[in-house]
Amino acid sequence: MSDSCNTCSAAGTCSGESCPPELTEAQKASRIGKVVAIMSGKGGVGKSSVTGMLAVSLRRQGYKVGILDADITGPSIPKIFGVKDKANVVPAGVIPPTSSSGIKIMSLNLMLENEDDPVIWRGPIIAQILNQFWTDVVWGELDYLLLDLPPGTGDVPITIFQSLPVDGLVVVTSPQQLANMVVRKAIKMAKKYDPRFYGLIENMAYVECPHCQERMEIFGKPQGQAEAARSEIPYLGELPVDPALATLSDAGKIEEYQSPAFDEIGRRLAEELKKNVTLNPSKLNLKM
Amino acid sequence: MSDSCNTCSAAGTCSGESCPPELTEAQKASRIGKVVAIMSGKGGVGKSSVTGMLAVSLRRQGYKVGILDADITGPSIPKIFGVKDKANVVPAGVIPPTSSSGIKIMSLNLMLENEDDPVIWRGPIIAQILNQFWTDVVWGELDYLLLDLPPGTGDVPITIFQSLPVDGLVVVTSPQQLANMVVRKAIKMAKKYDPRFYGLIENMAYVECPHCQERMEIFGKPQGQAEAARSEIPYLGELPVDPALATLSDAGKIEEYQSPAFDEIGRRLAEELKKNVTLNPSKLNLKM
Repeated sequence: MSDSCNTCSAAGTCSGESCPPELTEAQKASRIGKVVAIMSGKGGVGKSSVTGMLAVSLRRQGYKVGILDADITGPSIPKIFGVKDKANVVPAGVIPPTSSSGIKIMSLNLMLENEDDPVIWRGPIIAQILNQFWTDVVWGELDYLLLDLPPGTGDVPITIFQSLPVDGLVVVTSPQQLANMVVRKAIKMAKKYDPRFYGLIENMAYVECPHCQERMEIFGKPQGQAEAARSEIPYLGELPVDPALATLSDAGKIEEYQSPAFDEIGRRLAEELKKNVTLNPSKLNLKM
Repeated sequence: MSDSCNTCSAAGTCSGESCPPELTEAQKASRIGKVVAIMSGKGGVGKSSVTGMLAVSLRRQGYKVGILDADITGPSIPKIFGVKDKANVVPAGVIPPTSSSGIKIMSLNLMLENEDDPVIWRGPIIAQILNQFWTDVVWGELDYLLLDLPPGTGDVPITIFQSLPVDGLVVVTSPQQLANMVVRKAIKMAKKYDPRFYGLIENMAYVECPHCQERMEIFGKPQGQAEAARSEIPYLGELPVDPALATLSDAGKIEEYQSPAFDEIGRRLAEELKKNVTLNPSKLNLKM
């Protein structure tokens, strides 16, 4: 035992072969049940809206929920929740602002002076920020922490899968074959890291004409169910393009959105998530 | 003069202070009028579709056009043009496949075994690939090379602005305020590199019900014209979500798409591009 073992949380229980990193103060003050990454590979399929609505749905079902906005260069989460408070930095770490229904939110946009300031950073700096969102944010006790991933299969998803203890994934797709091709890239990438897939949601499946109630499949014929079967992922359901959601999101009021289709998807996801819930403090260590 | 000056294309004309990089064989065989980056910052606003249609429109107007698909981890261009031939590597460089109307296309997807194989690469490797798409592809003579940028303000846009001789930008946005916020990040980022802005296009401005012809603003009230004025960028026009475009894109037949709205935008862009056209071989050097 070295001197540093005296203050280590794993003292006496570790194998002594490799020294786990010390827990930060923020991590000691946090307990997170499951870490769920929401990914699509393709941009603009409504992943951030779906992430927001999943958080709202889980919150309505009584769970304690946080969102880590991992889309560092294109963050949307604070805006759709109307969260304008800056993140508060205290000696123990960064305190995430809370939405009106009590969802804890951390996003780089909560640390910028103006919400439309760009962050012109290459991958290594973005990876470092992501790690800090994990190690230095005082999440407190959460049942579920949702990670809103950016598009692509580059630095951010690689860092998330390699460094953060992701329990599983929700995949968001849209009907266009083009989107499906790119989403399949993301699924194939994720499978290399062997996470659990909690489900696939097909967003933007159709639009309903408010005038004549015609159902229009504006991006082509929905194929989420077939894609889910093909990729062996539970199919959670389809969602329309709903102008009401766009309006509420722009107004920062996504928590007021009501949608029976989404309620059903939220219930199905909660069922998947409930399987093997663990409150595992050791997960708070970074893998790297 | 050093020995290497004997074979240098800039011999006798350079200041002698800094040695420009040697042109590659591929660059010696290429002459590109203008390099135009299509960017949005936000994913899924239809940037690749707009890039494809701009290329089609310029081709229909008689120009020689190429597309460099800079969305390395989420490439869409080959699919919408139905280009399935792999890129051909010869001693002089990489020969880009040509679409049915004669548009030259280079994309990482033309070098993968399966179109849905992911590339799980961090930024430095992606930057290297982008540079090679510039230095090692035999573009031949082109009036315009369009670069289809990925979402975000990270490695790819940084590399493009720092290393490639971009003449100017076309910005693609969509009505949602959320999208606008992220697009403004990209505009602010681009302005740091002082390029020319050829114009702003608002995509997905509305959907027309095929049953009752109701115009639905499914993502909110269009605000592209106001955003263009605010950012001091020429406004090129708005486009609807058109299921016919999605269907043709999925079938690899984007060149068959007919749209009066797009024709008008293509004509306006061509006007902007025609100002100060230069065929400048020295631009073929990387800036870095």
